[in-house]
Amino acid sequence: MKKTLTTLTIVGLLAGGTAFAQDYSAQLKARQGEMRIMAINLGILGSMAKGETEYSAEAAQAAADTLVAVSMIGQAPLWPAGSSEMDIEGTRAKAEMWDNLPDVLDKWAAFGDAAKVMQAAAGEGQAALGPALGTVGGTCKACHDAHRAPAN
Amino acid sequence: MKKTLTTLTIVGLLAGGTAFAQDYSAQLKARQGEMRIMAINLGILGSMAKGETEYSAEAAQAAADTLVAVSMIGQAPLWPAGSSEMDIEGTRAKAEMWDNLPDVLDKWAAFGDAAKVMQAAAGEGQAALGPALGTVGGTCKACHDAHRAPAN
Repeated sequence: MKKTLTTLTIVGLLAGGTAFAQDYSAQLKARQGEMRIMAINLGILGSMAKGETEYSAEAAQAAADTLVAVSMIGQAPLWPAGSSEMDIEGTRAKAEMWDNLPDVLDKWAAFGDAAKVMQAAAGEGQAALGPALGTVGGTCKACHDAHRAPAN
Repeated sequence: MKKTLTTLTIVGLLAGGTAFAQDYSAQLKARQGEMRIMAINLGILGSMAKGETEYSAEAAQAAADTLVAVSMIGQAPLWPAGSSEMDIEGTRAKAEMWDNLPDVLDKWAAFGDAAKVMQAAAGEGQAALGPALGTVGGTCKACHDAHRAPAN
């Protein structure tokens, strides 16, 4: 009996070890990179909306176009099962995400729709940026609130 | 005279210190993340081209569509002056890149054109993947050979 328990424990540890050893660092860098691209371009638009930098229709349009481009990146390959905060270090993606992928994809699609709103508004002057940014930001928050664990 | 030299030295150190202290970690994560997204999706297509994974028109199309999406990301905000391998840790971007931005942008545009070739080929069957991948890979290599420092 003791031997059986020990064997099971070892098998369990090996299985756990295997799960931990799976290298999802590329996927993590990919999805965290796309979030940074969004943040950098939202920062450009936000700074113009607040009047901290001078409004430039060209720069605003480029930033908004990039948000749309990011929304077109296929997400499935970046979020393999086993890459949640319960599985690996360096991510705040909740494990529950993978139990509710349709909701995740709906929220990602909502970001895409909001990015198109931003794209249409970006060239229309400084005053048009704020409301569109609010729409985009709302879609970011909806997904983070639901599917991202709090920071430590 | 001694005081003047000391003052100049301190000013020089402060300037150097400021350059080093500039935090481009978001830009580095952003541009390295977009490269990872490209690599992951090229990996999906390459694995199908080699017959290591079964050809799926849907998955191949999604991967190719993502390459096109990445090619639409505005690059300027991700590559600020002062973020070369001579300026900061964690990048292999050659300083000469910033002296030859038109060439960098030409090479990025060539990747976009090749991604569209891949996008048109992806759904046309397993045999169509290899040649299109070769076209894409050539544009990756052209930019890396010119503008990326060798790995240590």
